[in-house]
Amino acid sequence: MFETILPEEIEQRSFAIIEEELGEQVLNPVQAPVIKRVIHTTADFDYVENLCFSEQAVEKGVRALKDGACIVTDTEMARAGINKRALARFGGEAFCFISDEEVAREAKARGVTRASVSMERAASLHRPLVVAIGNAPTALARLYELTREGKISPELVIGVPVGFVHVVEAKELFLQSEVPHIVARGRKGGSNVAAAICNALLYLAGGRTL
Amino acid sequence: MFETILPEEIEQRSFAIIEEELGEQVLNPVQAPVIKRVIHTTADFDYVENLCFSEQAVEKGVRALKDGACIVTDTEMARAGINKRALARFGGEAFCFISDEEVAREAKARGVTRASVSMERAASLHRPLVVAIGNAPTALARLYELTREGKISPELVIGVPVGFVHVVEAKELFLQSEVPHIVARGRKGGSNVAAAICNALLYLAGGRTL
Repeated sequence: MFETILPEEIEQRSFAIIEEELGEQVLNPVQAPVIKRVIHTTADFDYVENLCFSEQAVEKGVRALKDGACIVTDTEMARAGINKRALARFGGEAFCFISDEEVAREAKARGVTRASVSMERAASLHRPLVVAIGNAPTALARLYELTREGKISPELVIGVPVGFVHVVEAKELFLQSEVPHIVARGRKGGSNVAAAICNALLYLAGGRTL
Repeated sequence: MFETILPEEIEQRSFAIIEEELGEQVLNPVQAPVIKRVIHTTADFDYVENLCFSEQAVEKGVRALKDGACIVTDTEMARAGINKRALARFGGEAFCFISDEEVAREAKARGVTRASVSMERAASLHRPLVVAIGNAPTALARLYELTREGKISPELVIGVPVGFVHVVEAKELFLQSEVPHIVARGRKGGSNVAAAICNALLYLAGGRTL
């Protein structure tokens, strides 16, 4: 059943439907592949309005990934959703430190969240990074502090945690900052959205138009 | 920043906000923890309307997991999102066959999707299963065929693929079937939603009320 269409064709048709339903809404052509891939991942057209891009955010993310930047995520789920093969083609790797026992121990000892300590681990990588946060507002807030302290300087921050407590505020920190960012304003987002944005940038880096 | 609240408190506050915003909408009390956890995961209140439960679906899922049922997902992302510790407490394991090389080879040889072949692998486990599908409509459609052929008899099907092509139709197959199911009617869903429903059932199985 449904086996007569290849997955690639399904993707193409899906993007065609998304374009059709967007109708006369004009998307920034550089941002459009990212926005459409998020809609493809969520079937939620709210992201047309929610997604905010700092100046040349897409270009900067694509450039960084092409140059071999690594991706750090706040959850294993976001990491699982990233196309690691596409990332490896440019020399990058995907990291997530949330499940490290040492991170858990340190978080407990200091009375902070594991998500927060995991961002310090990202800072200690000392590699060009795209940091993608789909879940933990404390990760995004700690990342912001680390950028202010000059301890990390991400090529791009994908700030799309989802939720009801501290999420909106954590996103606003980056929306008002100079750090290159793609942020889903408001409550919506998720690990799936974080991974979708990473993949959209990777596909652009690889020359795909979708 | 934001470090004064523990993650458990954030979850409690989030659920309180969700309840407040639901206002006078009355949820089925047995289904409510599942619906609320999906909203918690997506910040999307559409799931109040979208989620369809067959008779006693929650009770059946909880019972199965308590009795040590395993969970099979269609994506690594959904598997990554499942609380494996909670699952292991009852003796269950989480499987995903999509990345198996043998599955890829067989799918290519037969001209079908890997997702579809991965469901046949699930059938060959011959163990009590909760099957959670958050991405591939072909997985859901093949699973339906396998149930019709008597080759698999899941304790519960969580049918929440997301997307624009074949997704609605694949879900309708289960909505009209006798197989116990929780289905997100329409286009919405996702690996995050699949994992959230699994976790909601696991927490209920463990006696948590959230």
